[in-house]
Amino acid sequence: MAMTLPRGFRSAGLAAGLKPSGRPDLALLAADGPLDWAFVGTRNRLSAACVDRTRRLLAAGAPVRAVIMNAGNANCATGAQGAKDDEALAALAAGALGDLDPDQVLTASTGVIGVPMPMDTVRAAVPRVAAALGQGVEGLSQAILTTDTRAKVAEATLPGGARVVGVAKGSGMIHPDMGTMLAFVATDADLPAATLRQAWPEVAARTFNQVTVDGDTSPNDMALLLSSRRVNASEASLLAALEQVAAELAERIAADGEGASTLIRVHVRGAARAGDALAAARTVAGSALVKTAVHGRDPNWGRILSSLGRSGADFDPRQAEIVLQGTTVYRGQPLDFDAAALSAALDADVVEIEADLGAGSAEGRAWGCDLTDGYVRINADYTT
Amino acid sequence: MAMTLPRGFRSAGLAAGLKPSGRPDLALLAADGPLDWAFVGTRNRLSAACVDRTRRLLAAGAPVRAVIMNAGNANCATGAQGAKDDEALAALAAGALGDLDPDQVLTASTGVIGVPMPMDTVRAAVPRVAAALGQGVEGLSQAILTTDTRAKVAEATLPGGARVVGVAKGSGMIHPDMGTMLAFVATDADLPAATLRQAWPEVAARTFNQVTVDGDTSPNDMALLLSSRRVNASEASLLAALEQVAAELAERIAADGEGASTLIRVHVRGAARAGDALAAARTVAGSALVKTAVHGRDPNWGRILSSLGRSGADFDPRQAEIVLQGTTVYRGQPLDFDAAALSAALDADVVEIEADLGAGSAEGRAWGCDLTDGYVRINADYTT
Repeated sequence: MAMTLPRGFRSAGLAAGLKPSGRPDLALLAADGPLDWAFVGTRNRLSAACVDRTRRLLAAGAPVRAVIMNAGNANCATGAQGAKDDEALAALAAGALGDLDPDQVLTASTGVIGVPMPMDTVRAAVPRVAAALGQGVEGLSQAILTTDTRAKVAEATLPGGARVVGVAKGSGMIHPDMGTMLAFVATDADLPAATLRQAWPEVAARTFNQVTVDGDTSPNDMALLLSSRRVNASEASLLAALEQVAAELAERIAADGEGASTLIRVHVRGAARAGDALAAARTVAGSALVKTAVHGRDPNWGRILSSLGRSGADFDPRQAEIVLQGTTVYRGQPLDFDAAALSAALDADVVEIEADLGAGSAEGRAWGCDLTDGYVRINADYTT
Repeated sequence: MAMTLPRGFRSAGLAAGLKPSGRPDLALLAADGPLDWAFVGTRNRLSAACVDRTRRLLAAGAPVRAVIMNAGNANCATGAQGAKDDEALAALAAGALGDLDPDQVLTASTGVIGVPMPMDTVRAAVPRVAAALGQGVEGLSQAILTTDTRAKVAEATLPGGARVVGVAKGSGMIHPDMGTMLAFVATDADLPAATLRQAWPEVAARTFNQVTVDGDTSPNDMALLLSSRRVNASEASLLAALEQVAAELAERIAADGEGASTLIRVHVRGAARAGDALAAARTVAGSALVKTAVHGRDPNWGRILSSLGRSGADFDPRQAEIVLQGTTVYRGQPLDFDAAALSAALDADVVEIEADLGAGSAEGRAWGCDLTDGYVRINADYTT
């Protein structure tokens, strides 16, 4: 089923030749008019040229018209030439879109760190991707992938007809350093830029920043929200739709983690503070011991309790409860359960871990995946 | 070569029957007179009965006479009965040593979380281990191991003849949750308890807390320093000896990490603060991407720079330098190097990663190991 973008947006993706595999690797998302936007970028002290540039444009605060994205070259740790190349890429797209100001075009990259952007390749491809605008979501969602095994798209429709459509790529890592989470969410809901800029970091904190595949943070991570403001909508309905779309994309990224065979959903309740709930959920989802236990179908609740304990969340383990795949295994002390039956229940595409910290009423979610031989092979069996 | 303990200490280890394998699992370290001591325990909110009890005794501040240790049962998340069992274990050892006060005996445990201590097994074995005192270091160093493939012992001799002897077990994890770092360091250097208690957490911060195998923190972790105060020594010489012994034990724990084939030594210089240097070194040593790159002999410096960037250390990547196994690969920008030769150099038992953050003069070290299929198999291929 072909999905369309919200009103006012067009997109295209194609193979520019950045990926040795010949797969699609260049995408353009563009609008006919100005787009209000919001941005959350990597917390890594090392940041790619596109992240630095996007932060500068965010501070300037002006609307934009397009985003040019590539999956193949991170343009990171590439020095002053990298910043120039990133500016040149924006200028190429601005020109191909009909003489826009380059500052009206945002850039996003993922790929090899420390390798100069092959500008001849890009120069030849940008006019082609601009000419292809109008493909729908499919081309865009494919051209931003790296080690992902499938495209990630989510959508929501607001009362009144406004829509939110998001695409993302996962945090898999291939040879070397193809590891980045990118998310682009477009909406036509007519709400002010100030609303978007306040809401987006809060949504990202509960969704994209709660995905963990291997604990590494890419210097290229970014989540962009863009709005064409074509359709009336309430702020509450947009916030709910953004949360839904971002959470769906987050879950799909975790499910498609490198080497993953099982999605791990963690839901922490009863926390003293929202930040505690998020930290606790993220720590469980990211624990190498929990991830290997899930892979081994081992109903090993001690690893979950120990992960909660080191998460920094404020709670008393004697007041806590753990429910693993629907079975309560710990409530202040070990409970009797049928280990063989629970092990069989863990042999599933999705494993649900629920914890109640018994310390308050805040809750939070996180998404992870099991740790497998496949992850090790993907990331080790490469030699430059 | 049999190693002796410092003056005033005796030890023994034997197989009590806690480990299904029948390997040694109970050890006793004892002294003829009072021992001054210092303690660093887990930061996990979940803490074993022995950690809780040791903290209480530390606050009371009195000297002790012995430590009874087991490798086989963590006595953690075992509720009020667990605390009683831990007290009973101390009382058993106190009685076997000739009617000591139970508060003169410390306890340490590692093993399965959430399983009651088999008190009948322990009751039968404690008198035997007390009767065996005087074996030397070998029995002690063997009886505290779990997934470790070899015993870990280090020693140093101070000017004037005082000695420091330490044993440790690694942070490997077996079915389920055999994951703990224990270290016991004995000295006969005559320095006040206040000196020990100030120095020991600082030494541990630079050594034991800079070891990472998989990022998980056990609820049973503890590092104990005990002193019989038999031999005159200077404070400076004792601190240097403690640092040396603790760093050697830390390195041996990392080298014997589960599934590890390569020890990773990280040395960060040029940091603005000591805490920055420690965090940066620890983050590199713990990065799944760095660990898999080392396993794959991939001279992939982008992963190192990205790990430094997410470590929280305050620095500018454009001022940083990275030296991988003796080859400078990045100095503010990518440098040319012979990738095939460096890949060959990474095929070694020890890989050295040096980074200069260009932000100050502080430095720090960390120790890790490569991430292999073996780690995944050890931790996944178990079903309760």
